Amino acid sequence: MGDLIRVVVLGTGQMGSGIARLILRKPALQLVGACARRRERDGIDLGLAIGLDRALGIPVKTDLVALIDQTQPHVAIQATCSTLDDAWQELSLLIERGINVISIAEEMAYPAAKSPSRAAALHQLAVNHGASVLGTGINPGFVLDLLIILLTGVCAEVEAITARRINDLSPYGPTVLASQGVGLTPEAFARGLQNGSVVGHIGFEQSLRMIAAALGWDLDRIEQTREPIVSKVRRETPFVTVEPGQIAGCLHAATAYRQGRTVIRLIHPQQIHPHLEGVETGDSIDIKGSPYLHIQGRPEIPGGQATEALAVNMIPRVVGAVPGLYCMADLPVPAAMPGNANFSRFARQAKGGWR
Amino acid sequence: MGDLIRVVVLGTGQMGSGIARLILRKPALQLVGACARRRERDGIDLGLAIGLDRALGIPVKTDLVALIDQTQPHVAIQATCSTLDDAWQELSLLIERGINVISIAEEMAYPAAKSPSRAAALHQLAVNHGASVLGTGINPGFVLDLLIILLTGVCAEVEAITARRINDLSPYGPTVLASQGVGLTPEAFARGLQNGSVVGHIGFEQSLRMIAAALGWDLDRIEQTREPIVSKVRRETPFVTVEPGQIAGCLHAATAYRQGRTVIRLIHPQQIHPHLEGVETGDSIDIKGSPYLHIQGRPEIPGGQATEALAVNMIPRVVGAVPGLYCMADLPVPAAMPGNANFSRFARQAKGGWR
Repeated sequence: MGDLIRVVVLGTGQMGSGIARLILRKPALQLVGACARRRERDGIDLGLAIGLDRALGIPVKTDLVALIDQTQPHVAIQATCSTLDDAWQELSLLIERGINVISIAEEMAYPAAKSPSRAAALHQLAVNHGASVLGTGINPGFVLDLLIILLTGVCAEVEAITARRINDLSPYGPTVLASQGVGLTPEAFARGLQNGSVVGHIGFEQSLRMIAAALGWDLDRIEQTREPIVSKVRRETPFVTVEPGQIAGCLHAATAYRQGRTVIRLIHPQQIHPHLEGVETGDSIDIKGSPYLHIQGRPEIPGGQATEALAVNMIPRVVGAVPGLYCMADLPVPAAMPGNANFSRFARQAKGGWR
Repeated sequence: MGDLIRVVVLGTGQMGSGIARLILRKPALQLVGACARRRERDGIDLGLAIGLDRALGIPVKTDLVALIDQTQPHVAIQATCSTLDDAWQELSLLIERGINVISIAEEMAYPAAKSPSRAAALHQLAVNHGASVLGTGINPGFVLDLLIILLTGVCAEVEAITARRINDLSPYGPTVLASQGVGLTPEAFARGLQNGSVVGHIGFEQSLRMIAAALGWDLDRIEQTREPIVSKVRRETPFVTVEPGQIAGCLHAATAYRQGRTVIRLIHPQQIHPHLEGVETGDSIDIKGSPYLHIQGRPEIPGGQATEALAVNMIPRVVGAVPGLYCMADLPVPAAMPGNANFSRFARQAKGGWR
């Protein structure tokens, strides 16, 4: 069993729990511990904390340093936060101990979008301590950036990119719904935008900067718009009821300009039960270039499941990479890890490449 | 200008010419020479050989060793052949001189499909001589393998994969049309399959083995079928006329079995003017797993253009990779290289990573 990749998970919320459960299904991986931010979780059995009906004999810790010292993981998955600021302390603590890190914090998908200097510092820290660090997730990290970049690979030239992700927020809980203004009046939505309680999607700047960097484009500026999706019908989930005239979600879009022209437009309306007004969910990418490309998938790739899978499926890529900070466009593509006993193919490899 | 990546192209046929023309449009690249297999091309100006209306002052060579010695390229693009056997001599000659190679030979997309021992030998040769070697192309190399692998990355588990590429052969010349049996009678098509003159698609084994390797699947076996597409209507291109009852193309499909079950099915009907019988061209991928995924693009990604772009757009990835043999799933994804002056981002990097 010495070939197994030892993994710890930071965060025992919905995403952290899903990631931990998936790790348990992968024979090449060994879940050796988990760290919670919530004090009251300290000492709870990890199996129970992540919603299994059995104990794992692994207590949840709240002291990350002690957890790392005791478990000696090869890689840590960070599922505790969204922003670079919030992620920083855990990241630096892990990296300084030479632990590879995969973060699903949205701003970690392309840290230079928020702060080029902090991205450079993370990269240097990773190099100094022999760790590889990656931000991933469905969005940012996959649909509205990596997939677009990949598709431009078949183009001789690219003039402009438009991509849409139309999804259904109905499965989500109160925190996510509130961040999109679901259930508010139009007036309260407007106030929410002003006071920052309605945020829309986190990740457009990261996706746009990742695409621009891959294509070698210098952007003039990025503009974002957040508009209310006012419902014409009654829409209901276990957590919210939206009456006609109230807000069903947020239409958030971002536009990147280069040399005075619109070059990338990302459109991401998020709402509950879009089908009630005839809106079909899905992901689509249009590339105006040589050749023109149009790709779509319906329904949309489910966000939560996909982010959990990406975090786990990128483990062999991150563990095998030379030390440094990576975005999804910097590493070989993810692939579903086998749920069977093909251990050796995913055994920990020497740093320096993927063979 | 010392930061430019120096490129030579092997082959001055349709693909080699297209690749050379694209290299000329990329400021980060310098086309330093070309090698033709056809003796009669020796000494012809490269500009004229690749269909430009101007001379480049670079004579086409037929002696590859002399070309390499004189031009000292960082990377060579091989566009001369389809099979590993046919590619071997040029490949080994280049690799032994430490030249990175990108080959569009179909069997080079995943050389281990044809011969694991020759793939291992190529890898060792590349490592010994400090060269990176990649096979690429639209198919195999992108639509029916890399794109599938990438999409499995959002899956917790994958049960089965079905993918279709329905394309239009109308733009192609007599060699391609003959290889698909276009214009033959059904009897002649059957004889062509037997005597090997009708081959269908080259690349299914490469795509299937690449996918299986990425997913950690051991395959029981691969089965292929080649069926005639008998036209009900008259179809015509500059190179062939197909009367009703004659062959408009070849429906080639391949199935991979694992643990007694069909796990991957790739379907690739190739014909002229499919729309004349109401057939819409396109690429589609269905993944049965958690979650289920369905992605499609219409019309199909144009094969010739895309292969040329991939060969060029992978140059920075190959030049930046640690020495060894790679398939498309082993390297960071391609991105359209800028046609502007952002030279430095694509300047030759030290071996050992992408930063």
